[in-house]
Amino acid sequence: MITAEARLRVRYVETDQMGIVYYSNYFIWMELGRVEWCRAAGIRYRDMEAEDGILLAVAEAQCRYAQPARYDDEVLVETTVREAHSRLVTFDYKMKRAEDGAVLATGFTKHVFLGKNLERTRLPKKYHTAFEISRI
Amino acid sequence: MITAEARLRVRYVETDQMGIVYYSNYFIWMELGRVEWCRAAGIRYRDMEAEDGILLAVAEAQCRYAQPARYDDEVLVETTVREAHSRLVTFDYKMKRAEDGAVLATGFTKHVFLGKNLERTRLPKKYHTAFEISRI
Amino acid sequence: MITAEARLRVRYVETDQMGIVYYSNYFIWMELGRVEWCRAAGIRYRDMEAEDGILLAVAEAQCRYAQPARYDDEVLVETTVREAHSRLVTFDYKMKRAEDGAVLATGFTKHVFLGKNLERTRLPKKYHTAFEISRI
Amino acid sequence: MITAEARLRVRYVETDQMGIVYYSNYFIWMELGRVEWCRAAGIRYRDMEAEDGILLAVAEAQCRYAQPARYDDEVLVETTVREAHSRLVTFDYKMKRAEDGAVLATGFTKHVFLGKNLERTRLPKKYHTAFEISRI
Repeated sequence: MITAEARLRVRYVETDQMGIVYYSNYFIWMELGRVEWCRAAGIRYRDMEAEDGILLAVAEAQCRYAQPARYDDEVLVETTVREAHSRLVTFDYKMKRAEDGAVLATGFTKHVFLGKNLERTRLPKKYHTAFEISRI
Repeated sequence: MITAEARLRVRYVETDQMGIVYYSNYFIWMELGRVEWCRAAGIRYRDMEAEDGILLAVAEAQCRYAQPARYDDEVLVETTVREAHSRLVTFDYKMKRAEDGAVLATGFTKHVFLGKNLERTRLPKKYHTAFEISRI
Repeated sequence: MITAEARLRVRYVETDQMGIVYYSNYFIWMELGRVEWCRAAGIRYRDMEAEDGILLAVAEAQCRYAQPARYDDEVLVETTVREAHSRLVTFDYKMKRAEDGAVLATGFTKHVFLGKNLERTRLPKKYHTAFEISRI
Repeated sequence: MITAEARLRVRYVETDQMGIVYYSNYFIWMELGRVEWCRAAGIRYRDMEAEDGILLAVAEAQCRYAQPARYDDEVLVETTVREAHSRLVTFDYKMKRAEDGAVLATGFTKHVFLGKNLERTRLPKKYHTAFEISRI
């Protein structure tokens, strides 16, 4: 099972007047995590979209916030796939502060595969191994 | 029970290269919804923060996406309070396309009250009526 | 000469840890201003893009910041067209705090017209009157 | 004269429905550039703000767009200081696509130094060498 690690540094724009990172940004970080997961699994998300017309549309997203992230913090996004079928995939995320390993947030996103017309489709077989889908 | 309705128009910046609204933006819209709920309940969120030093920190957020929102769509955010105690409050949201009433997404956010030092605190009594908190 | 006025309320996400609006957001507000200008000139930007395949790509953008905008401020974006030709258009913006009329920022954006393939094109004649283009 | 280079990868959220990066994001990239410049000059911007209460408020910002950046592009932000006094500093930026060195955009930001109360102040002497300010 692949666990990918994305690394990012908190941007000034991501903070709000509380002095901490605004909560919607964690969902952007999850995106960085799953792109990194794809890369680790041998898939370039950009190519899957451009060449095969497969889009990973978000059907559900959830985040639990443990500790606030702050400006200039280095953040690690650990990403795994909880389950994958030919029609949907669920990613789990753990976001940690790099400096001390403190867990900042955990969450998941559930995706359906869409074709270019934004209608539901099946993930092409060539990607099944990467997503560890054994049977359809 | 108060149901507040915020109204917004999808901004160009909120779309992504799929041609639809990027998923983290719905959480920003939820913020507009709960500020509107506060206003309907007689609370100006800005003042609660500036005058009483009470911050509504997000402890958990979740969204289920039903249909994509698109550029220039008018969106309604219906907001209610699911539960409120002196230490936490949970808001429920329903986001609809104004034109035809189609549900775009539903979700919730769970908040804890923080003081200016970002430590957990109780909601001051003067706000209990607005949040329909009867006993502590 | 058309002067359009867009009205917006500062969102929490738009603030940063300085307690004021982060500077890149003013460019998003300019977008709201020029869409409103188009509407006032009888053009729905969404349709120009969807039906005629005309995109208004930004070639240059500038902003001078006078006073900080703050959370929950109501902001007016006054937009005019400085010059328009069949190949480019320049919008001027004045952003004011609604409460007292204080000027928050001024700026401009210069745009070229692109076709769906993102190559430069001329604005179709049907839009010339709206943009007050007399000769090509 | 210091030239700093920041490196970033275009995020999905930064694209819009034109399929290219939305124009306000380049100003966020400039921020990454100037933070990197500070680091190269021996200043941690976070500390300057937290320990000395010095804020770098933006007084003016400008960007010229040459070629569109796209999702997953690696972008280099070359940053130099055009001029610095004890009351203001101007940064110049050149943003390039890492893959082929193509210039995507150029721009500048002009900043004034503010104290914690958001009033104009002078840059403390301890930072003058880093900003190459010889006389006040």
